[in-house]
Amino acid sequence: MRISELSRRSGVPITTIKYYLREGLLHPGRATAPNQAEYDDSHVRRLRLVRALVGVRGLSVGAAKEVLGGVYEREGDPHRVLGLVLGATADAADTGDAAGGAASPRMSEVDALLDALGWQVSEDASGKAVVARTLDTLAELGTDYDWKRLVPYGELAARIAAVDLDGIEGIRDPLEMAERALVLTVLLEPALMALRRLAQEHQSAVRRGAGPEGPDAPGAPAGGVSPPPAP
Amino acid sequence: MRISELSRRSGVPITTIKYYLREGLLHPGRATAPNQAEYDDSHVRRLRLVRALVGVRGLSVGAAKEVLGGVYEREGDPHRVLGLVLGATADAADTGDAAGGAASPRMSEVDALLDALGWQVSEDASGKAVVARTLDTLAELGTDYDWKRLVPYGELAARIAAVDLDGIEGIRDPLEMAERALVLTVLLEPALMALRRLAQEHQSAVRRGAGPEGPDAPGAPAGGVSPPPAP
Repeated sequence: MRISELSRRSGVPITTIKYYLREGLLHPGRATAPNQAEYDDSHVRRLRLVRALVGVRGLSVGAAKEVLGGVYEREGDPHRVLGLVLGATADAADTGDAAGGAASPRMSEVDALLDALGWQVSEDASGKAVVARTLDTLAELGTDYDWKRLVPYGELAARIAAVDLDGIEGIRDPLEMAERALVLTVLLEPALMALRRLAQEHQSAVRRGAGPEGPDAPGAPAGGVSPPPAP
Repeated sequence: MRISELSRRSGVPITTIKYYLREGLLHPGRATAPNQAEYDDSHVRRLRLVRALVGVRGLSVGAAKEVLGGVYEREGDPHRVLGLVLGATADAADTGDAAGGAASPRMSEVDALLDALGWQVSEDASGKAVVARTLDTLAELGTDYDWKRLVPYGELAARIAAVDLDGIEGIRDPLEMAERALVLTVLLEPALMALRRLAQEHQSAVRRGAGPEGPDAPGAPAGGVSPPPAP
Protein backbone atom coordinates (compact mmCIF):
# COMPACT_ATOMS: atom_id res chain seq x y z
CA MET A 1 0.00 0.00 0.00
CA ARG A 2 1.04 3.64 -0.46
CA ILE A 3 1.83 5.94 2.46
CA SER A 4 -1.61 7.59 2.25
CA GLU A 5 -3.31 4.22 2.72
CA LEU A 6 -0.90 3.36 5.56
CA SER A 7 -1.89 6.64 7.24
CA ARG A 8 -5.58 5.88 6.81
CA ARG A 9 -5.32 2.35 8.18
CA SER A 10 -3.06 3.16 11.14
CA GLY A 11 -4.69 6.48 12.04
CA VAL A 12 -1.24 8.13 12.11
CA PRO A 13 -0.79 11.34 10.04
CA ILE A 14 1.54 11.14 7.01
CA THR A 15 3.93 13.74 8.46
CA THR A 16 4.26 11.68 11.65
CA ILE A 17 4.88 8.50 9.62
CA LYS A 18 7.68 10.29 7.72
CA TYR A 19 9.14 11.45 11.03
CA TYR A 20 9.10 7.89 12.42
CA LEU A 21 10.75 6.64 9.21
CA ARG A 22 13.52 9.26 9.53
CA GLU A 23 14.05 8.40 13.21
CA GLY A 24 14.16 4.68 12.51
CA LEU A 25 11.08 3.90 14.60
CA LEU A 26 9.45 2.44 11.49
CA HIS A 27 11.23 0.15 9.03
CA PRO A 28 11.44 1.44 5.43
CA GLY A 29 8.94 0.29 2.82
CA ARG A 30 9.91 -1.40 -0.44
CA ALA A 31 11.10 1.34 -2.83
CA THR A 32 9.07 1.38 -6.06
CA ALA A 33 10.28 4.75 -7.40
CA PRO A 34 12.78 7.42 -6.26
CA ASN A 35 10.20 9.10 -4.04
CA GLN A 36 7.73 6.28 -3.55
CA ALA A 37 7.54 3.15 -1.41
CA GLU A 38 5.18 0.27 -0.84
CA TYR A 39 4.12 -0.62 2.72
CA ASP A 40 2.44 -3.72 4.15
CA ASP A 41 0.63 -5.03 7.23
CA SER A 42 3.86 -5.14 9.24
CA HIS A 43 4.01 -1.33 8.95
CA VAL A 44 0.44 -0.93 10.18
CA ARG A 45 1.18 -3.16 13.17
CA ARG A 46 4.44 -1.41 14.01
CA LEU A 47 2.82 2.04 13.80
CA ARG A 48 0.12 1.01 16.27
CA LEU A 49 2.78 -0.26 18.64
CA VAL A 50 4.82 2.96 18.36
CA ARG A 51 1.71 5.03 18.99
CA ALA A 52 0.94 2.96 22.09
CA LEU A 53 4.46 3.35 23.47
CA VAL A 54 4.82 7.05 22.76
CA GLY A 55 1.21 8.07 23.28
CA VAL A 56 -0.03 5.91 26.13
CA ARG A 57 3.10 5.42 28.20
CA GLY A 58 4.76 8.71 27.31
CA LEU A 59 8.08 7.19 26.25
CA SER A 60 10.39 9.56 24.37
CA VAL A 61 10.95 8.78 20.70
CA GLY A 62 14.52 7.80 21.60
CA ALA A 63 13.42 5.37 24.32
CA ALA A 64 10.74 3.84 22.07
CA LYS A 65 13.30 3.41 19.30
CA GLU A 66 15.67 1.62 21.67
CA VAL A 67 12.96 -0.75 22.91
CA LEU A 68 11.62 -1.55 19.44
CA GLY A 69 15.06 -1.94 17.89
CA GLY A 70 16.05 -4.45 20.54
CA VAL A 71 12.78 -6.34 20.36
CA TYR A 72 12.94 -6.87 16.63
CA GLU A 73 16.63 -7.79 16.67
CA ARG A 74 16.08 -10.53 19.24
CA GLU A 75 12.74 -11.70 17.99
CA GLY A 76 13.78 -15.35 17.77
CA ASP A 77 14.56 -15.61 21.48
CA PRO A 78 11.57 -15.02 23.80
CA HIS A 79 13.64 -14.91 26.97
CA ARG A 80 16.06 -12.30 25.63
CA VAL A 81 13.23 -10.25 24.15
CA LEU A 82 11.45 -10.22 27.47
CA GLY A 83 14.65 -9.31 29.30
CA LEU A 84 15.22 -6.42 26.93
CA VAL A 85 11.64 -5.19 27.16
CA LEU A 86 11.78 -5.29 30.95
CA GLY A 87 15.11 -3.49 31.16
CA ALA A 88 14.54 -0.87 28.49
CA THR A 89 11.05 0.15 29.50
CA ALA A 90 12.04 0.26 33.14
CA ASP A 91 14.98 2.52 32.31
CA ALA A 92 12.84 4.76 30.19
CA ALA A 93 9.95 5.06 32.62
CA ASP A 94 11.70 5.06 35.99
CA THR A 95 14.91 6.98 35.45
CA GLY A 96 14.09 9.24 38.37
CA ASP A 97 13.38 6.38 40.71
CA ALA A 98 16.32 4.26 39.69
CA ALA A 99 18.96 7.01 39.58
CA GLY A 100 21.74 6.27 42.01
CA GLY A 101 19.96 3.18 43.24
CA ALA A 102 22.73 0.84 42.16
CA ALA A 103 24.98 2.26 44.87
CA SER A 104 22.22 2.27 47.49
CA PRO A 105 23.16 0.81 50.86
CA ARG A 106 19.76 -0.94 50.67
CA MET A 107 20.93 -3.20 47.86
CA SER A 108 21.82 -5.94 50.36
CA GLU A 109 18.22 -5.79 51.65
CA VAL A 110 16.98 -6.16 48.08
CA ASP A 111 19.19 -9.23 47.72
CA ALA A 112 17.74 -10.61 50.96
CA LEU A 113 14.24 -10.06 49.55
CA LEU A 114 15.10 -11.81 46.29
CA ASP A 115 16.64 -14.70 48.26
CA ALA A 116 13.50 -15.01 50.40
CA LEU A 117 11.42 -15.11 47.21
CA GLY A 118 13.79 -17.60 45.56
CA TRP A 119 14.24 -15.43 42.47
CA GLN A 120 17.28 -15.49 40.22
CA VAL A 121 17.65 -12.20 38.32
CA SER A 122 20.56 -10.51 36.59
CA GLU A 123 22.92 -8.51 38.80
CA ASP A 124 22.10 -5.22 37.09
CA ALA A 125 18.33 -5.66 36.70
CA SER A 126 16.94 -2.13 36.88
CA GLY A 127 14.03 -3.23 39.06
CA LYS A 128 16.46 -3.86 41.93
CA ALA A 129 17.43 -0.18 42.06
CA VAL A 130 13.76 0.85 42.14
CA VAL A 131 13.06 -1.44 45.10
CA ALA A 132 16.20 -0.20 46.89
CA ARG A 133 15.16 3.40 46.40
CA THR A 134 11.68 2.65 47.74
CA LEU A 135 13.15 1.00 50.86
CA ASP A 136 15.31 4.11 51.34
CA THR A 137 12.31 6.41 51.16
CA LEU A 138 10.20 4.24 53.48
CA ALA A 139 13.01 4.34 56.06
CA GLU A 140 13.44 8.13 55.68
CA LEU A 141 9.73 8.55 56.33
CA GLY A 142 10.16 6.68 59.59
CA THR A 143 7.84 3.79 58.65
CA ASP A 144 8.51 0.26 59.84
CA TYR A 145 8.40 -1.01 56.25
CA ASP A 146 11.58 -2.97 55.62
CA TRP A 147 12.26 -5.66 53.01
CA LYS A 148 10.35 -8.29 55.01
CA ARG A 149 7.14 -6.27 54.53
CA LEU A 150 7.68 -6.56 50.78
CA VAL A 151 7.73 -10.39 50.77
CA PRO A 152 3.93 -10.79 50.42
CA TYR A 153 3.97 -8.19 47.64
CA GLY A 154 6.74 -10.13 45.92
CA GLU A 155 4.76 -13.36 46.18
CA LEU A 156 1.76 -11.70 44.54
CA ALA A 157 4.00 -10.10 41.89
CA ALA A 158 5.22 -13.62 41.07
CA ARG A 159 1.62 -14.73 40.51
CA ILE A 160 1.02 -11.71 38.25
CA ALA A 161 4.17 -12.58 36.29
CA ALA A 162 2.86 -16.13 35.85
CA VAL A 163 -0.35 -14.74 34.30
CA ASP A 164 1.80 -12.44 32.13
CA LEU A 165 3.95 -15.30 30.84
CA ASP A 166 0.93 -17.55 30.24
CA GLY A 167 -0.17 -14.79 27.85
CA ILE A 168 2.87 -15.25 25.62
CA GLU A 169 3.24 -19.02 25.89
CA GLY A 170 2.36 -20.89 22.76
CA ILE A 171 2.64 -17.90 20.42
CA ARG A 172 4.65 -19.21 17.49
CA ASP A 173 5.20 -16.08 15.42
CA PRO A 174 8.31 -14.38 16.87
CA LEU A 175 7.17 -10.88 15.92
CA GLU A 176 3.79 -11.39 17.53
CA MET A 177 5.49 -12.80 20.62
CA ALA A 178 7.77 -9.77 20.93
CA GLU A 179 4.89 -7.36 20.55
CA ARG A 180 2.76 -9.25 23.06
CA ALA A 181 5.58 -9.16 25.65
CA LEU A 182 5.86 -5.42 25.15
CA VAL A 183 2.11 -4.89 25.44
CA LEU A 184 1.82 -7.00 28.58
CA THR A 185 4.74 -5.37 30.31
CA VAL A 186 4.36 -1.73 29.40
CA LEU A 187 0.70 -1.15 28.67
CA LEU A 188 -0.78 -3.19 31.50
CA GLU A 189 1.09 -1.29 34.24
CA PRO A 190 -1.37 1.61 34.57
CA ALA A 191 -4.31 -0.82 34.48
CA LEU A 192 -2.78 -3.00 37.20
CA MET A 193 -2.22 -0.01 39.47
CA ALA A 194 -5.74 1.25 38.75
CA LEU A 195 -7.17 -2.18 39.64
CA ARG A 196 -5.21 -2.06 42.90
CA ARG A 197 -6.73 1.34 43.76
CA LEU A 198 -10.23 0.16 42.88
CA ALA A 199 -9.72 -2.95 45.02
CA GLN A 200 -8.51 -0.78 47.90
CA GLU A 201 -11.63 1.36 47.64
CA HIS A 202 -13.92 -1.68 47.57
CA GLN A 203 -12.21 -3.47 50.45
CA SER A 204 -11.96 -0.33 52.54
CA ALA A 205 -15.74 0.07 52.25
CA VAL A 206 -16.30 -3.59 53.11
CA ARG A 207 -14.00 -3.49 56.14
CA ARG A 208 -15.60 -0.28 57.36
CA GLY A 209 -19.01 -1.91 57.01
CA ALA A 210 -20.07 0.87 54.64
CA GLY A 211 -21.08 -1.33 51.73
CA PRO A 212 -24.35 -0.63 49.91
CA GLU A 213 -26.27 -2.94 52.27
CA GLY A 214 -24.17 -2.24 55.37
CA PRO A 215 -24.74 0.52 57.91
CA ASP A 216 -22.95 3.79 57.23
CA ALA A 217 -21.16 4.37 60.51
CA PRO A 218 -19.57 7.82 60.57
CA GLY A 219 -18.41 7.27 64.14
CA ALA A 220 -16.66 3.98 63.40
CA PRO A 221 -13.29 3.77 65.14
CA ALA A 222 -10.14 4.32 63.10
CA GLY A 223 -8.87 0.96 61.94
CA GLY A 224 -12.24 -0.25 60.70
CA VAL A 225 -14.85 -2.74 61.80
CA SER A 226 -14.11 -6.44 62.35
CA PRO A 227 -10.67 -6.77 60.81
CA PRO A 228 -10.00 -10.29 59.53
CA PRO A 229 -7.63 -12.53 61.49
CA ALA A 230 -4.02 -12.14 60.46
CA PRO A 231 -3.03 -14.72 57.81
CA MET B 1 12.67 24.23 67.32
CA ARG B 2 13.77 27.08 65.05
CA ILE B 3 13.64 26.83 61.25
CA SER B 4 17.39 26.11 61.04
CA GLU B 5 16.97 23.07 63.29
CA LEU B 6 13.91 21.99 61.28
CA SER B 7 16.03 22.20 58.13
CA ARG B 8 18.80 20.14 59.71
CA ARG B 9 16.48 17.42 60.99
CA SER B 10 14.35 17.11 57.84
CA GLY B 11 17.21 17.52 55.36
CA VAL B 12 15.17 20.15 53.48
CA PRO B 13 16.91 23.51 52.77
CA ILE B 14 15.55 26.59 54.60
CA THR B 15 14.57 28.33 51.34
CA THR B 16 12.54 25.25 50.32
CA ILE B 17 10.84 25.15 53.74
CA LYS B 18 9.87 28.82 53.34
CA TYR B 19 8.50 28.06 49.87
CA TYR B 20 6.41 25.15 51.22
CA LEU B 21 5.11 27.43 54.01
CA ARG B 22 4.07 30.11 51.47
CA GLU B 23 2.39 27.49 49.27
CA GLY B 24 0.54 25.94 52.19
CA LEU B 25 2.23 22.55 51.85
CA LEU B 26 3.52 22.92 55.40
CA HIS B 27 1.43 24.20 58.30
CA PRO B 28 2.72 27.37 60.01
CA GLY B 29 4.79 27.15 63.18
CA ARG B 30 3.84 28.87 66.44
CA ALA B 31 4.79 32.56 66.09
CA THR B 32 7.21 33.66 68.83
CA ALA B 33 8.24 37.02 67.33
CA PRO B 34 7.25 39.03 64.21
CA ASN B 35 9.77 37.18 62.04
CA GLN B 36 10.29 34.02 64.08
CA ALA B 37 8.35 30.79 64.65
CA GLU B 38 8.71 27.60 66.63
CA TYR B 39 8.32 24.22 64.88
CA ASP B 40 7.82 20.71 66.25
CA ASP B 41 7.96 17.03 65.25
CA SER B 42 4.78 17.33 63.20
CA HIS B 43 6.67 19.68 60.86
CA VAL B 44 9.57 17.26 60.49
CA ARG B 45 7.16 14.45 59.62
CA ARG B 46 5.16 16.55 57.16
CA LEU B 47 8.32 17.76 55.41
CA ARG B 48 9.49 14.19 54.87
CA LEU B 49 6.10 13.30 53.41
CA VAL B 50 6.12 16.32 51.07
CA ARG B 51 9.61 15.46 49.91
CA ALA B 52 8.53 11.88 49.19
CA LEU B 53 5.48 13.01 47.19
CA VAL B 54 7.24 15.72 45.21
CA GLY B 55 10.66 14.09 44.95
CA VAL B 56 9.95 10.40 44.54
CA ARG B 57 6.65 10.38 42.70
CA GLY B 58 7.15 13.64 40.84
CA LEU B 59 3.82 15.19 41.89
CA SER B 60 3.53 18.91 41.21
CA VAL B 61 3.48 21.19 44.27
CA GLY B 62 -0.19 21.89 43.52
CA ALA B 63 -1.11 18.19 43.37
CA ALA B 64 0.83 17.43 46.57
CA LYS B 65 -0.92 20.31 48.33
CA GLU B 66 -4.31 18.99 47.28
CA VAL B 67 -3.55 15.47 48.49
CA LEU B 68 -2.09 16.59 51.81
CA GLY B 69 -4.82 19.16 52.47
CA GLY B 70 -7.50 16.54 51.96
CA VAL B 71 -5.71 13.91 54.02
CA TYR B 72 -5.30 16.13 57.04
CA GLU B 73 -8.86 17.48 56.85
CA ARG B 74 -10.34 13.99 56.88
CA GLU B 75 -7.87 12.42 59.25
CA GLY B 76 -10.54 11.02 61.57
CA ASP B 77 -12.15 8.88 58.87
CA PRO B 78 -9.88 6.17 57.43
CA HIS B 79 -12.23 5.21 54.62
CA ARG B 80 -12.64 8.79 53.39
CA VAL B 81 -8.92 9.46 53.72
CA LEU B 82 -8.15 6.40 51.66
CA GLY B 83 -10.75 7.38 49.07
CA LEU B 84 -9.21 10.82 48.78
CA VAL B 85 -5.66 9.51 48.57
CA LEU B 86 -6.66 7.07 45.84
CA GLY B 87 -8.54 9.65 43.82
CA ALA B 88 -6.14 12.55 44.17
CA THR B 89 -2.94 10.67 43.51
CA ALA B 90 -4.51 8.84 40.60
CA ASP B 91 -5.64 12.14 39.10
CA ALA B 92 -2.23 13.68 39.63
CA ALA B 93 -0.23 10.78 38.27
CA ASP B 94 -2.44 9.44 35.51
CA THR B 95 -4.01 12.51 33.93
CA GLY B 96 -2.80 11.42 30.54
CA ASP B 97 -4.20 7.95 30.86
CA ALA B 98 -7.52 8.98 32.32
CA ALA B 99 -8.25 11.89 29.98
CA GLY B 100 -11.42 11.27 28.06
CA GLY B 101 -11.79 7.85 29.61
CA ALA B 102 -15.08 8.67 31.32
CA ALA B 103 -16.80 8.81 27.94
CA SER B 104 -15.06 5.69 26.65
CA PRO B 105 -17.28 3.15 24.94
CA ARG B 106 -15.31 0.57 26.94
CA MET B 107 -16.83 1.73 30.22
CA SER B 108 -19.50 -0.99 30.02
CA GLU B 109 -16.71 -3.57 29.75
CA VAL B 110 -15.09 -2.08 32.84
CA ASP B 111 -18.42 -2.44 34.65
CA ALA B 112 -18.61 -6.07 33.52
CA LEU B 113 -15.11 -6.62 34.91
CA LEU B 114 -16.03 -5.03 38.25
CA ASP B 115 -19.20 -7.15 38.38
CA ALA B 116 -17.20 -10.32 37.72
CA LEU B 117 -14.83 -9.35 40.54
CA GLY B 118 -17.72 -8.46 42.85
CA TRP B 119 -16.33 -5.00 43.57
CA GLN B 120 -18.43 -2.00 44.59
CA VAL B 121 -16.66 1.26 43.74
CA SER B 122 -17.86 4.83 43.27
CA GLU B 123 -19.26 5.71 39.86
CA ASP B 124 -16.54 8.26 39.12
CA ALA B 125 -13.54 6.34 40.50
CA SER B 126 -10.62 7.50 38.34
CA GLY B 127 -9.23 3.96 38.11
CA LYS B 128 -12.19 2.99 35.92
CA ALA B 129 -11.15 5.43 33.21
CA VAL B 130 -7.59 4.10 33.27
CA VAL B 131 -8.80 0.52 32.77
CA ALA B 132 -11.18 1.64 29.98
CA ARG B 133 -8.36 3.44 28.22
CA THR B 134 -6.13 0.36 28.48
CA LEU B 135 -8.86 -1.85 26.97
CA ASP B 136 -9.18 0.67 24.13
CA THR B 137 -5.46 0.54 23.41
CA LEU B 138 -5.31 -3.26 23.59
CA ALA B 139 -8.14 -3.45 21.05
CA GLU B 140 -6.48 -0.87 18.77
CA LEU B 141 -3.32 -2.95 18.80
CA GLY B 142 -5.32 -5.91 17.58
CA THR B 143 -4.66 -8.11 20.62
CA ASP B 144 -7.28 -10.51 21.91
CA TYR B 145 -7.07 -8.93 25.38
CA ASP B 146 -10.58 -7.99 26.45
CA TRP B 147 -11.96 -7.44 29.95
CA LYS B 148 -12.14 -11.19 30.64
CA ARG B 149 -8.35 -11.39 30.34
CA LEU B 150 -8.13 -8.81 33.14
CA VAL B 151 -10.12 -10.91 35.65
CA PRO B 152 -7.08 -12.85 36.98
CA TYR B 153 -5.19 -9.55 37.27
CA GLY B 154 -8.11 -8.09 39.21
CA GLU B 155 -8.16 -11.07 41.56
CA LEU B 156 -4.46 -10.61 42.29
CA ALA B 157 -4.95 -6.83 42.70
CA ALA B 158 -7.58 -7.64 45.34
CA ARG B 159 -5.03 -9.71 47.23
CA ILE B 160 -2.52 -6.86 47.01
CA ALA B 161 -5.16 -4.45 48.34
CA ALA B 162 -5.78 -6.83 51.26
CA VAL B 163 -2.06 -6.67 52.15
CA ASP B 164 -2.23 -2.86 51.77
CA LEU B 165 -5.19 -2.53 54.10
CA ASP B 166 -3.69 -4.94 56.65
CA GLY B 167 -0.84 -2.42 56.81
CA ILE B 168 -3.14 0.35 58.09
CA GLU B 169 -5.40 -1.80 60.29
CA GLY B 170 -5.00 -1.18 63.97
CA ILE B 171 -3.21 2.16 63.63
CA ARG B 172 -4.98 4.38 66.16
CA ASP B 173 -3.35 7.76 65.55
CA PRO B 174 -5.35 9.37 62.71
CA LEU B 175 -2.40 11.37 61.37
CA GLU B 176 -0.20 8.28 61.27
CA MET B 177 -3.01 6.35 59.58
CA ALA B 178 -3.43 9.01 56.89
CA GLU B 179 0.29 9.14 56.21
CA ARG B 180 0.53 5.36 56.07
CA ALA B 181 -2.31 5.16 53.54
CA LEU B 182 -0.52 7.72 51.39
CA VAL B 183 2.80 5.90 51.64
CA LEU B 184 1.28 2.52 50.79
CA THR B 185 -0.70 3.79 47.85
CA VAL B 186 1.67 6.23 46.21
CA LEU B 187 5.17 5.16 47.14
CA LEU B 188 4.76 1.41 46.74
CA GLU B 189 3.58 1.62 43.12
CA PRO B 190 7.04 1.77 41.50
CA ALA B 191 8.28 -1.02 43.79
CA LEU B 192 5.31 -3.24 42.91
CA MET B 193 5.87 -2.77 39.19
CA ALA B 194 9.60 -3.39 39.65
CA LEU B 195 8.85 -6.63 41.54
CA ARG B 196 6.59 -7.70 38.68
CA ARG B 197 9.39 -7.12 36.16
CA LEU B 198 11.91 -8.99 38.32
CA ALA B 199 9.45 -11.88 38.69
CA GLN B 200 8.92 -11.95 34.92
CA GLU B 201 12.67 -12.16 34.38
CA HIS B 202 13.04 -14.97 36.91
CA GLN B 203 10.09 -17.00 35.62
CA SER B 204 11.03 -16.48 32.00
CA ALA B 205 14.44 -17.99 32.76
CA VAL B 206 12.86 -20.90 34.64
CA ARG B 207 10.32 -21.64 31.88
CA ARG B 208 13.05 -21.47 29.24
CA GLY B 209 15.10 -23.93 31.26
CA ALA B 210 17.92 -21.40 31.48
CA GLY B 211 18.20 -21.34 35.25
CA PRO B 212 21.61 -21.60 36.90
CA GLU B 213 21.33 -25.41 37.09
CA GLY B 214 19.31 -25.83 33.90
CA PRO B 215 20.70 -26.27 30.39
CA ASP B 216 21.25 -23.09 28.41
CA ALA B 217 19.52 -23.85 25.14
CA PRO B 218 20.22 -21.10 22.60
CA GLY B 219 18.43 -23.08 19.91
CA ALA B 220 15.19 -23.44 21.89
CA PRO B 221 12.12 -22.85 19.74
CA ALA B 222 10.29 -19.52 19.99
CA GLY B 223 7.55 -19.79 22.57
CA GLY B 224 9.77 -21.55 25.10
CA VAL B 225 10.02 -25.13 26.19
CA SER B 226 6.91 -27.31 26.53
CA PRO B 227 4.23 -24.66 26.04
CA PRO B 228 0.84 -25.51 27.56
CA PRO B 229 -2.06 -26.31 25.21
CA ALA B 230 -3.79 -23.23 23.80
CA PRO B 231 -6.68 -22.05 26.00
